[in-house]
Amino acid sequence: MEYRVERDTIGEINVPADKYWGAQTQRSKQNFPIGTEKMPNEIIKAFAILKKSAAKANSDLGLLDAKKAEAIEYAADQVLEEQLNDHFPLVVWQTGSGTQSNMNVNEVIAYVGNQWLEKKGSDLSLHPNDDVNKSQSSNDTYPTAMHIASVLKMEDVVLPAIRTLKDTLKVKMDQFQDIVKIGRTHLQDATPLTLGQEISGWHRMLEKSESMVEESLHYLKELAIGGTAVGTGLNAHPEFSERVCEAINNFTGKNFISAPNKFHALTSHDETVYAHGALKALAADMMKIANDVRWLASGPRCGIGEITIPANEPGSSIMPGKVNPTQSEAVTMVAAQVMGNDATIGFAASQGNFELNVFKPVIAFNFLQSCQILADSIVSFDERCAQGIEPNHEQIEKYLNDSLMLVTALNPHIGYENAAKIAKKAFEDNSTLKETAVELGLLTEEEFEKYVKPEEMTHPK
Amino acid sequence: MEYRVERDTIGEINVPADKYWGAQTQRSKQNFPIGTEKMPNEIIKAFAILKKSAAKANSDLGLLDAKKAEAIEYAADQVLEEQLNDHFPLVVWQTGSGTQSNMNVNEVIAYVGNQWLEKKGSDLSLHPNDDVNKSQSSNDTYPTAMHIASVLKMEDVVLPAIRTLKDTLKVKMDQFQDIVKIGRTHLQDATPLTLGQEISGWHRMLEKSESMVEESLHYLKELAIGGTAVGTGLNAHPEFSERVCEAINNFTGKNFISAPNKFHALTSHDETVYAHGALKALAADMMKIANDVRWLASGPRCGIGEITIPANEPGSSIMPGKVNPTQSEAVTMVAAQVMGNDATIGFAASQGNFELNVFKPVIAFNFLQSCQILADSIVSFDERCAQGIEPNHEQIEKYLNDSLMLVTALNPHIGYENAAKIAKKAFEDNSTLKETAVELGLLTEEEFEKYVKPEEMTHPK
Amino acid sequence: MEYRVERDTIGEINVPADKYWGAQTQRSKQNFPIGTEKMPNEIIKAFAILKKSAAKANSDLGLLDAKKAEAIEYAADQVLEEQLNDHFPLVVWQTGSGTQSNMNVNEVIAYVGNQWLEKKGSDLSLHPNDDVNKSQSSNDTYPTAMHIASVLKMEDVVLPAIRTLKDTLKVKMDQFQDIVKIGRTHLQDATPLTLGQEISGWHRMLEKSESMVEESLHYLKELAIGGTAVGTGLNAHPEFSERVCEAINNFTGKNFISAPNKFHALTSHDETVYAHGALKALAADMMKIANDVRWLASGPRCGIGEITIPANEPGSSIMPGKVNPTQSEAVTMVAAQVMGNDATIGFAASQGNFELNVFKPVIAFNFLQSCQILADSIVSFDERCAQGIEPNHEQIEKYLNDSLMLVTALNPHIGYENAAKIAKKAFEDNSTLKETAVELGLLTEEEFEKYVKPEEMTHPK
Amino acid sequence: MEYRVERDTIGEINVPADKYWGAQTQRSKQNFPIGTEKMPNEIIKAFAILKKSAAKANSDLGLLDAKKAEAIEYAADQVLEEQLNDHFPLVVWQTGSGTQSNMNVNEVIAYVGNQWLEKKGSDLSLHPNDDVNKSQSSNDTYPTAMHIASVLKMEDVVLPAIRTLKDTLKVKMDQFQDIVKIGRTHLQDATPLTLGQEISGWHRMLEKSESMVEESLHYLKELAIGGTAVGTGLNAHPEFSERVCEAINNFTGKNFISAPNKFHALTSHDETVYAHGALKALAADMMKIANDVRWLASGPRCGIGEITIPANEPGSSIMPGKVNPTQSEAVTMVAAQVMGNDATIGFAASQGNFELNVFKPVIAFNFLQSCQILADSIVSFDERCAQGIEPNHEQIEKYLNDSLMLVTALNPHIGYENAAKIAKKAFEDNSTLKETAVELGLLTEEEFEKYVKPEEMTHPK
Repeated sequence: MEYRVERDTIGEINVPADKYWGAQTQRSKQNFPIGTEKMPNEIIKAFAILKKSAAKANSDLGLLDAKKAEAIEYAADQVLEEQLNDHFPLVVWQTGSGTQSNMNVNEVIAYVGNQWLEKKGSDLSLHPNDDVNKSQSSNDTYPTAMHIASVLKMEDVVLPAIRTLKDTLKVKMDQFQDIVKIGRTHLQDATPLTLGQEISGWHRMLEKSESMVEESLHYLKELAIGGTAVGTGLNAHPEFSERVCEAINNFTGKNFISAPNKFHALTSHDETVYAHGALKALAADMMKIANDVRWLASGPRCGIGEITIPANEPGSSIMPGKVNPTQSEAVTMVAAQVMGNDATIGFAASQGNFELNVFKPVIAFNFLQSCQILADSIVSFDERCAQGIEPNHEQIEKYLNDSLMLVTALNPHIGYENAAKIAKKAFEDNSTLKETAVELGLLTEEEFEKYVKPEEMTHPK
Repeated sequence: MEYRVERDTIGEINVPADKYWGAQTQRSKQNFPIGTEKMPNEIIKAFAILKKSAAKANSDLGLLDAKKAEAIEYAADQVLEEQLNDHFPLVVWQTGSGTQSNMNVNEVIAYVGNQWLEKKGSDLSLHPNDDVNKSQSSNDTYPTAMHIASVLKMEDVVLPAIRTLKDTLKVKMDQFQDIVKIGRTHLQDATPLTLGQEISGWHRMLEKSESMVEESLHYLKELAIGGTAVGTGLNAHPEFSERVCEAINNFTGKNFISAPNKFHALTSHDETVYAHGALKALAADMMKIANDVRWLASGPRCGIGEITIPANEPGSSIMPGKVNPTQSEAVTMVAAQVMGNDATIGFAASQGNFELNVFKPVIAFNFLQSCQILADSIVSFDERCAQGIEPNHEQIEKYLNDSLMLVTALNPHIGYENAAKIAKKAFEDNSTLKETAVELGLLTEEEFEKYVKPEEMTHPK
Repeated sequence: MEYRVERDTIGEINVPADKYWGAQTQRSKQNFPIGTEKMPNEIIKAFAILKKSAAKANSDLGLLDAKKAEAIEYAADQVLEEQLNDHFPLVVWQTGSGTQSNMNVNEVIAYVGNQWLEKKGSDLSLHPNDDVNKSQSSNDTYPTAMHIASVLKMEDVVLPAIRTLKDTLKVKMDQFQDIVKIGRTHLQDATPLTLGQEISGWHRMLEKSESMVEESLHYLKELAIGGTAVGTGLNAHPEFSERVCEAINNFTGKNFISAPNKFHALTSHDETVYAHGALKALAADMMKIANDVRWLASGPRCGIGEITIPANEPGSSIMPGKVNPTQSEAVTMVAAQVMGNDATIGFAASQGNFELNVFKPVIAFNFLQSCQILADSIVSFDERCAQGIEPNHEQIEKYLNDSLMLVTALNPHIGYENAAKIAKKAFEDNSTLKETAVELGLLTEEEFEKYVKPEEMTHPK
Repeated sequence: MEYRVERDTIGEINVPADKYWGAQTQRSKQNFPIGTEKMPNEIIKAFAILKKSAAKANSDLGLLDAKKAEAIEYAADQVLEEQLNDHFPLVVWQTGSGTQSNMNVNEVIAYVGNQWLEKKGSDLSLHPNDDVNKSQSSNDTYPTAMHIASVLKMEDVVLPAIRTLKDTLKVKMDQFQDIVKIGRTHLQDATPLTLGQEISGWHRMLEKSESMVEESLHYLKELAIGGTAVGTGLNAHPEFSERVCEAINNFTGKNFISAPNKFHALTSHDETVYAHGALKALAADMMKIANDVRWLASGPRCGIGEITIPANEPGSSIMPGKVNPTQSEAVTMVAAQVMGNDATIGFAASQGNFELNVFKPVIAFNFLQSCQILADSIVSFDERCAQGIEPNHEQIEKYLNDSLMLVTALNPHIGYENAAKIAKKAFEDNSTLKETAVELGLLTEEEFEKYVKPEEMTHPK
């Protein structure tokens, strides 16, 4: 392997000749041989957006040569187009400020920018710190990149996924609105509802999660940029922060703003904890939905079996012909992961000291993972399971007719205690409610038929 | 001990003669001898609000005798005045729908209401199910009581606590706005800021938490009431739900509404997960604030010691004269508890099946505990610690003058690498920055003094 | 209310005249009006055991007057007999070293001991610090009390509970060893097993948990006592620690030892985290068992219904005659709580600094709560549910005969793919496996009957 | 891209021509486009060990042609040598039994084994299910692979890492055994100890974690293999399980055994929860150690600064010359991750139903991640931080001389309250203890000097 020599304030160090990173990246690579979890690509891209926006702001303020700004923009665009993925080798488990990933971006942009300047015949040369990082510190850029990446992920990946499944469930709830079925509470037979109503509960969960995610998002739109090292904004122009936000908004089409208090912005991740709370609520709801689906589809012959779902693959390596609710299983495993990620984020967010919280990479890593796996699993569940849900009419009707809880409709007519007598006796005698009601002399057959109409029980007037 | 015989649909059972509860409460008391954690009193009171509101709605709709409604209201008011606390013996670890606590309230209200009716010379008699629980089920009343209790707690206990500490911090940040001190990132010396700025970061945390709590609250204002057993509203009048909400609002002065989808309202606790996410964000921030305070006050002679805090009690049973940051410690232990409560709530909220989630009591218990201990610890911390924070000017100045990170102000003038040379050499030589800068020939003394002004570094122009 | 004046090194303070505590307890009561969670009684009692053991050791070493030691023992025994419960008013949310509860015990024992001395006509007088706390610090006594309380709880409450349910399950697994039923994986029909085998899996869970709890316990038997303020043992006799342990063992019948490294004993709670890991494993298993029980008992007419469980109370306030698996629900809510407690304990245990971890009360509170509610819920579940489990033979047989997964027995004879063909076609045709196998010409009826014997599939040879 | 057609019981499907996997892998790849988290390579390798061991057992039992077994072994060895990494494309978020990864291994081994058979001129052909998966099910092989991978990771990666750091700390504690320094409790000055004693507490943490990890491991040595589909062992020879374990032990040098109850082995992951409890205890301890190190090294001029640690890289992109405790930060972020992973594992382990727990991949993923990042971060921390810890004698002495808590040594001579008076007055007067003691007339200068000897306070006699 060939090397070139790079240097930083610590001294010289060998860097692989074909890699564009510099001394600090190389040092981090060597100093943190921990795990395989890479700094998320979303963070690297958010940095690229930030770096070109900062270059524009610096240039507009007369603090950076316009040609240099152009070079930075060129290189940042290369990052955004994923041309330079091989040049970001660092892992999550590095310094807790993410300094080394900020420097990785600074170094690669300086390298590629310098190649471009050279090609253009320019004498100028970019310095990773003095130019690419101008008016910035890791302490404000890393949380800025976190927020940019988080908002893009939530708005462009999570929310569309939620809406997709929500729309499918809307179709199903309308389609099945008249299919009367037995309800179940405590896993025990209860009063009837329609399959459409049951699904409307799931639909409402997604509606709520959509609203919670949207709402929790806006806190993430405050950016730390401009705070520099400790929040005072030392070495940054007073207009820098707002100009950077404007440039970011122009590029992303979002509406980020400069955080009104930069001391908070460097030390607190309350916004991320809060927004991940919305993701946890979504995970809890998805767990419920996926569980309901697989229980309703359980069987085919020895379970509940009120619905059928698509058979996507052989279910067993030993039991021939077995089909399993695998999309539900992926969703529920994702929910388990999101619960753990939430614990990590809360822990990490609580551990700031003085002017900085140094648990930023682990927070970003967990937040973005939750977003991605939630969104992907919801889309997959939608496409390969929810869309294919069909009622099993025969089974639904069988249960409805057997159930003893239809007796509840009699409460207003004969009182709770008499109704209870009927249900208990019918159960003991393995008999029907109507027969038992008449036998007990509590109602006539006609009265029973008038009061106990399952379809009316689902839409009381 | 004397007993009277009560009965329910299971049969007869002895109840202590001096207790107002009935058969179902007694059964639960005997069947769940688990732990000592009582069903929170806030839930019992919320039930009382609900029961009298339901009685009013039923009466207005012509479904309940007005005298009976009056009796229910009388008894409910007794509960609200905490006259009947001894009659609610049940624990959290009961049925997961909270049915037994709903019945406990129904039974006690019926008992006390019947005493009242008798005293009034009425022939009427309240039945726990047919009258007090009329148009209701545990499945809609318990989550309704959860939401009422949660909203009251958040608005009347948590938010005022947040605002109290926020106001104190505002005073402190203004008062200390000109005290320049060294900043610290990664626990290492960094560029300066003012003590007021440092505290402004804490202030902003509370401002954000206040906003998050307020915002997350409004989801909790949707009430399940009217859904009855499975969400269809069987046995409830179509107007019942909205009339109950109106009565609750009249009594509480809040703005609850009938949940638009009752199937969701019985099966999902996404609102509670989400709102507790705001509490977790607050806990993370309080952990940070309490930690900063105790670190800044560490010493008195062998720590950082930049501030002093009140000495409220002897700190040690063996070390005479020791004073410890005990209010911070209570706050940080509370934060640890809230983190765990959050895990419990997320877990529990994910475990619904079909038409009901049967983890309601454990969710309510943890949510209300988090509210109470967060609010109490914040108020105590405010009164006994935050209000007494004072700067230790001598120590603050000593550190400020010693720090090497003032060198950062030189970046724009001599570049990052030259500035680094000065800092490193000054550290090695145990010398000052100015001496070293001059010695290295990078700046004159005059230039150094012009560029490196700590107070200006805190408010760059 | 009447008061007397007490004093400590901070100054004078009013204490209610009828309470035996002193100035420091009173101060803590006033300074920490946070929540309602009292310092667990188990901790107070463990302190009492420790205080009388320390008095004996001090006396034997000639450091404490024998009469004083006797007075301390007398008072400590009063605490152990729960005669003095009203005199321990402090909450969990106090100083993180538990100093104030140590002083509460010191003060109450001094008070009661002094009464005793006076009654005995002695001139001697106990001082809370100099006598009752002699050779001790809160920093070593509180973790000692935590370990004593934890070990007593685990050995005397948790383990017996586990064994009780384990024994019941042993009876059931033997009793039902020949009842062949369908198996279910992924909630879908699978190959058969016996009901006894299914229960044997639960039995094994308890066997494992029993072993894990026993094993994890022994770390808790190392006591911090003797470390005093920072672990060096300052002001304690070198033999003090081992003599105290001996006295504790004599009283409790356990086998505690003096922790070999006291610096660890004051700063780390790894033993508690680890032991609570065994409780979490138990909670996970109990969740599984309780879920299986309620699913197998689901119905009575629209669920799986393979077993019946006792009907302990009316299940619904609106649905007459409904019976719910409420013991399972209490168990699963407890499991949710234990999951959260585990998060709190891990968080708290990680937050030690230098010579002390100041999250001790919150750790003790959560650990002891987990023990109690796990044990109580297991015993209740055993008595009111597990012992009453009975098979529903009719339903079990119906499912067994219907299942398609009996086809798995054909794999070794006709291969996985041919077997799959049979299962799929039988499902599509709503036919039996045998009919389909013959129809496809893959086996004769005789071969099918020879190969597919459910009872043999449960015990392959 | 070129394809070949593969088929399974669902039908035909295109597979990239250069990939060795088959229809079921391809289907999973298409059906679960969720996240980027691959099934851990450790699981794939554990499967390879299992598959060749199963082939040997089947062959020895006369159930599999010896040549076929040889082919399977050849292919499995290729997997173990990481020659086939490109052929395992599946993610964690698949079916919860891991069936698809079992089939991925079966398919790749069949493919490569068939190539080998062909090259050898054999007519034989391996079938993924009938040969490679013979006598097996995913339901027993996946948990078997989990346990093999977990034990290998714990014994070969985690334990050596713990021991490495433990040994370094042993060197340091011996080396610094006579350096007397001030102790700190509640972050406040306390009585003295030696730096060696302080480090001995950390050393003991690792010793305990080592023991806990070793102990918790042995539960993981029980293997599910032989249980097949539901635990009954259908289609497996009665000796199969033990023969497989023997072969695994021969290959790995470990001591796995056949789980005595296979119903437990398929449905419970209590062993993993428990063993991860040991990892969480380790994480809590590492958090404490890493925090102590960075606080003790805080400064260089405005912190505690009692020790120095290696400067491995530039610490700041804006503050020149800054050096940060980055190895500590990596360790503490890892600790945060492990806390979250623990929550995920506990949640997942609690969610089994009937004969299977279908959260296996997410459990394995989190467990193995915790192992790897804990071990790597410990080794890195050892090499790049702990080995380089050096005392800052000047600062240590300065603090020691200033501290007021040396007064504790006077308790046995003048009582706690008099000692407190001295400490308080010295603090208020900004004076020394000796001066104040004499001034108060409580001791002579000679007495003070006789009683208060910091070095003797660290080793009381």
